[in-house]
Amino acid sequence: MAGNSFGNIFKVSTFGESHGVAIGGVIDGCPSGIQLDFEAIQNELNRRKPGQSEIVTQRKEPDTVEFLSGIFEGQTTGTPIGFVIKNANQKSKDYTHIKDVYRPSHADYTYDQKYGVRDYRGGGRSSARETACRVVAGAIAKQVLKNVKINAFTSSVGEIFIDKPYQDLDFSKTENNIVRCPDEAIAEKMIARIKEIRKEGDTIGGTVTCVLQNVPVGLGEPVFDRLHAELGKAMLSINAVKGFEYGSGFCGAKMKGSEHNDIFNADGTTKSNLSGGIQGGISNGMDIYFRVAFKPVATIMQKQETINSKGEVLEMQGKGRHDPCVVPRAIPIVEAMAALVIADYYLLNKMYK
Amino acid sequence: MAGNSFGNIFKVSTFGESHGVAIGGVIDGCPSGIQLDFEAIQNELNRRKPGQSEIVTQRKEPDTVEFLSGIFEGQTTGTPIGFVIKNANQKSKDYTHIKDVYRPSHADYTYDQKYGVRDYRGGGRSSARETACRVVAGAIAKQVLKNVKINAFTSSVGEIFIDKPYQDLDFSKTENNIVRCPDEAIAEKMIARIKEIRKEGDTIGGTVTCVLQNVPVGLGEPVFDRLHAELGKAMLSINAVKGFEYGSGFCGAKMKGSEHNDIFNADGTTKSNLSGGIQGGISNGMDIYFRVAFKPVATIMQKQETINSKGEVLEMQGKGRHDPCVVPRAIPIVEAMAALVIADYYLLNKMYK
Amino acid sequence: MAGNSFGNIFKVSTFGESHGVAIGGVIDGCPSGIQLDFEAIQNELNRRKPGQSEIVTQRKEPDTVEFLSGIFEGQTTGTPIGFVIKNANQKSKDYTHIKDVYRPSHADYTYDQKYGVRDYRGGGRSSARETACRVVAGAIAKQVLKNVKINAFTSSVGEIFIDKPYQDLDFSKTENNIVRCPDEAIAEKMIARIKEIRKEGDTIGGTVTCVLQNVPVGLGEPVFDRLHAELGKAMLSINAVKGFEYGSGFCGAKMKGSEHNDIFNADGTTKSNLSGGIQGGISNGMDIYFRVAFKPVATIMQKQETINSKGEVLEMQGKGRHDPCVVPRAIPIVEAMAALVIADYYLLNKMYK
Amino acid sequence: MAGNSFGNIFKVSTFGESHGVAIGGVIDGCPSGIQLDFEAIQNELNRRKPGQSEIVTQRKEPDTVEFLSGIFEGQTTGTPIGFVIKNANQKSKDYTHIKDVYRPSHADYTYDQKYGVRDYRGGGRSSARETACRVVAGAIAKQVLKNVKINAFTSSVGEIFIDKPYQDLDFSKTENNIVRCPDEAIAEKMIARIKEIRKEGDTIGGTVTCVLQNVPVGLGEPVFDRLHAELGKAMLSINAVKGFEYGSGFCGAKMKGSEHNDIFNADGTTKSNLSGGIQGGISNGMDIYFRVAFKPVATIMQKQETINSKGEVLEMQGKGRHDPCVVPRAIPIVEAMAALVIADYYLLNKMYK
Repeated sequence: MAGNSFGNIFKVSTFGESHGVAIGGVIDGCPSGIQLDFEAIQNELNRRKPGQSEIVTQRKEPDTVEFLSGIFEGQTTGTPIGFVIKNANQKSKDYTHIKDVYRPSHADYTYDQKYGVRDYRGGGRSSARETACRVVAGAIAKQVLKNVKINAFTSSVGEIFIDKPYQDLDFSKTENNIVRCPDEAIAEKMIARIKEIRKEGDTIGGTVTCVLQNVPVGLGEPVFDRLHAELGKAMLSINAVKGFEYGSGFCGAKMKGSEHNDIFNADGTTKSNLSGGIQGGISNGMDIYFRVAFKPVATIMQKQETINSKGEVLEMQGKGRHDPCVVPRAIPIVEAMAALVIADYYLLNKMYK
Repeated sequence: MAGNSFGNIFKVSTFGESHGVAIGGVIDGCPSGIQLDFEAIQNELNRRKPGQSEIVTQRKEPDTVEFLSGIFEGQTTGTPIGFVIKNANQKSKDYTHIKDVYRPSHADYTYDQKYGVRDYRGGGRSSARETACRVVAGAIAKQVLKNVKINAFTSSVGEIFIDKPYQDLDFSKTENNIVRCPDEAIAEKMIARIKEIRKEGDTIGGTVTCVLQNVPVGLGEPVFDRLHAELGKAMLSINAVKGFEYGSGFCGAKMKGSEHNDIFNADGTTKSNLSGGIQGGISNGMDIYFRVAFKPVATIMQKQETINSKGEVLEMQGKGRHDPCVVPRAIPIVEAMAALVIADYYLLNKMYK
Repeated sequence: MAGNSFGNIFKVSTFGESHGVAIGGVIDGCPSGIQLDFEAIQNELNRRKPGQSEIVTQRKEPDTVEFLSGIFEGQTTGTPIGFVIKNANQKSKDYTHIKDVYRPSHADYTYDQKYGVRDYRGGGRSSARETACRVVAGAIAKQVLKNVKINAFTSSVGEIFIDKPYQDLDFSKTENNIVRCPDEAIAEKMIARIKEIRKEGDTIGGTVTCVLQNVPVGLGEPVFDRLHAELGKAMLSINAVKGFEYGSGFCGAKMKGSEHNDIFNADGTTKSNLSGGIQGGISNGMDIYFRVAFKPVATIMQKQETINSKGEVLEMQGKGRHDPCVVPRAIPIVEAMAALVIADYYLLNKMYK
Repeated sequence: MAGNSFGNIFKVSTFGESHGVAIGGVIDGCPSGIQLDFEAIQNELNRRKPGQSEIVTQRKEPDTVEFLSGIFEGQTTGTPIGFVIKNANQKSKDYTHIKDVYRPSHADYTYDQKYGVRDYRGGGRSSARETACRVVAGAIAKQVLKNVKINAFTSSVGEIFIDKPYQDLDFSKTENNIVRCPDEAIAEKMIARIKEIRKEGDTIGGTVTCVLQNVPVGLGEPVFDRLHAELGKAMLSINAVKGFEYGSGFCGAKMKGSEHNDIFNADGTTKSNLSGGIQGGISNGMDIYFRVAFKPVATIMQKQETINSKGEVLEMQGKGRHDPCVVPRAIPIVEAMAALVIADYYLLNKMYK
């Protein structure tokens, strides 16, 4: 209820502040008998971790996950998987200057209003550091879903976007560049744009597209827990996300029914896929694809006016090591949240068999 | 878990098929001591009901709600509110022609795949008729939230859209026209477009914008149950919805941090509101606004190729009385779902006091 | 959260007051494709209904269930099953004398304190009338669990009890007498005792024993949702229940480990079954058996001192048609709640396969 | 759903096996602004820990809790409280002899049947070691409930029991003896009995009584989530528990209504309290009291016949350091679970204000 758990059957509960001792979580409901690939899990964390390239924050965090339970001789046992990621880099002194300050478009003000007390160091609980725990859980969810392919990629940075349908992209190229865009020419432009923005001491938004392939038919629980509604919630729960659309999305709102309907082939597949792999909230076996909008990071290296907890107006400027664009590091997070939703609904759907 | 309940504290569970005996629901967790305005509830149903104007389906359903419990001498008692809406118009014979047919971009195929059995009459459970129950629950949620103003309106139909910020609109005009657009000149164009589309035997999509005012500061549960994540899920659970964005939304993904940040006034309000009234998943007291994309209705009055449950290809054509554009009738549904989310989080937030 | 739903996967939500228009509920998560035996459902209601014999309340309620959804051509469709039972017998005037009075050991006082408002007619929501809805849901749960045998019976009335292990009883005899005790000699004594008590204008407590056979191995979710913990909660949620024990129960607390341990046979069954069919919270395939204590009904036909809402002391006396002993009518309720728990955990366990 | 979380608002999720790296948990929904007394928390753990006296297991575990999040400058922040307790004493070699053996009346067999894989070291997840995490969460719940007094004590060991009502006991004496019985003469007999049993290589059961004082009026959610139903579930979820009764309990089933009814005083308190402080599932402000039955520990130091996973019959004998009677160490666990229920329902009840 207090919002730190996600999922029904495959459920993750996370804890931890940006500058506390550690972050971590508990995964409950993971099926037993899965021989875990630990390298794959750590690899997902590495895709998210700070300092991985020149266009992300230069903060250094090894982000090594330590499993405490639920695994015996490399296999899941069906009991809860507890894990921690120690916060190696607790330079708390960096943050005393913002102790009483409400940074614009951050959660400082709302946390203070809601809770009356706040761990102000690095955003505390509201920091995107928490998403590392989602990546761990998502990496295990991916291993539950052996046959499902989950590919997210950067589809736009600011005004620069991929101008092709995803079907024309080669997802194996996504990791070939630091912005995680499978179109290499566009990737170069995006990288250049992010470097430029960083030089200005500014930040920029972008979008992530995610494609799920081989999702079994029948996942999703009408009427309130439609598969796309849960995917939407999952994505909107990621820091900095402002929008979600799947299938035809907002473009679909401009179309006519005669254009939009997906005509069936004899085998139940469809000729087009504006539905985005989901009809009536239930997967139909076609590709599920969706797009997620990320706002520009709120911490900028320029002077801004703001207020403190006494209502005094003052000037502040971001310090330290922040991302000029959140999108490259958001790719594994989007994939992790998608994996969590699909794993959960996959297990849930077993009840109907 | 099976997806027919919404909310945590203020929780509604709905039941009912399009052409069964009745639809209905149970509202659990409604606070006691609320003197209900029954006319206001019925009025919300009337805004959603078929046959209300020339641009919606001409099906006749009185959609009269009957309360069975939870109310004593006009007041809520804190016990569950059971209600039913009888299906007056059960012309089941209309539907025998689609018994084994999977209509394109409907839920026929996926329901059959998931459940193996299906009430094919009028879409059964997948029919938008179910949303009448949401409107009942939402109308009561609105009465829990006396001070919160919830205004949804049609912001686009196909390519026609309101080209002003919502601040320049007069919400009191929304109900003045049958398309529910507060900009009268645009409304006329929208109505003309829908009539044209209907004449073609086609349908068209559109968007709904919703503005929530006077929402108390502090609603929302980080990290997974952020207020906008729950609003997003609520909207995406409505039939035909393809996308959700709040605040700056997808436009925000093109912006720079220096443009996007909302600078504080001394009193904690902000000069701009690209955040959309929510920071870190928690309401900040500013207006919450979001936009919802609806695809064109899948039932069209044109011939389409499709398949039946044996995989035979055949031709079909929509019959009867369908909406050429779902958006005018979706306005009260969007408001209802918004009210359900806010009421739920409002009650949830009381625990922190 | 507000407590009117039970179950995780197979979930029932109930509504309705004793003297409102109707009581009813929604069953969500019932698997599709079950050809329902409606006579069996009504038969369970008949076992619970008032007026069925000379030792229960003489109130007349036909208690006919009407299904509104979720069933098509006699089969469950996987969508929520809505149902109502009309309150035929709404003699509200009977209750004006208790409008402001708090009856001793009833819920009048606590409801007033909690909710500030109360439907005082016949106990309103706190009336055991609500359990009729559980019986409907339980009767359907029984049909989900084709192979599981659920037998509850009256094991004691006041000081009179069955002095044999359940293995020596013939459950087919339970329905042969009006007290629902499969030992006919004891049944006669129980019936005589209840008649005597009724003549005194008094009431008496008793116990129900329930035996579940052919429950599959593996049901139950450690650590908090152990099968017996959920059974215990289910039973303790029934009106007038004061205690629950399973397997060796309170007697087990007097025993030594060397006496209490159940020694295995080679096939995994056990020679004794003091564990009560559950080890570590998980069913082991042996019989599950438990015992439930019911207090005497609080409404007695004798004068008692009590208070009203103003704190004035006054005298009152029960009127009308109350049960001298709740146990005979509680048998189908105990079975229904047991069926709900087992069906829920049975479906939940499918996720592990 | 997989059973490792407890509570709705104040919710704890635990993880960890007896002989893994660590056990731990996440407490979500703890209100912010509570200045924690860490010594009090550790003190509760010390009351539960092994090796504390001559009548409990001589295993040595310091059971030091380490908090990882949710606390800032000694105060709760409203964000999840993550914690771990390292397993100091992982003598895994002790357990290779039981690798494939199913110990009688343990969870070995059922875990293997349910999950197909099992951490056999010391019972793994089914070990009562998990309850240390409940004690941590319960100790914090106690600090949320400043005014509520929670006192559990040993009320019987085998055939030896306290023959006085709890009102005649001085709870301040409970911790004066190692069996935690506030009646000193009875305590001595209990201790002697446990020593005798241990000498025989046997174990013995017992009961714990718990009294909750100053619980506010109005806690509890009818109809399924009655306060006593949730207390019952909480207690039945503790290892080795076989029964639960509250108020008059099983004795109440032998009584007449005229004896059992609690007559009101003018102020709403009652002259007697056979209801046990709860009417209609809602607290009435009187003392809540209940009794919990614990079976004898299954691990005995005597030879027993058993089977292994191949179905071979063999002889085994408990080794090592086990409790001859679980009850003295169960006292803080019972209190912790009671505190968790009351804190959860206390927060839940705030929504109605």
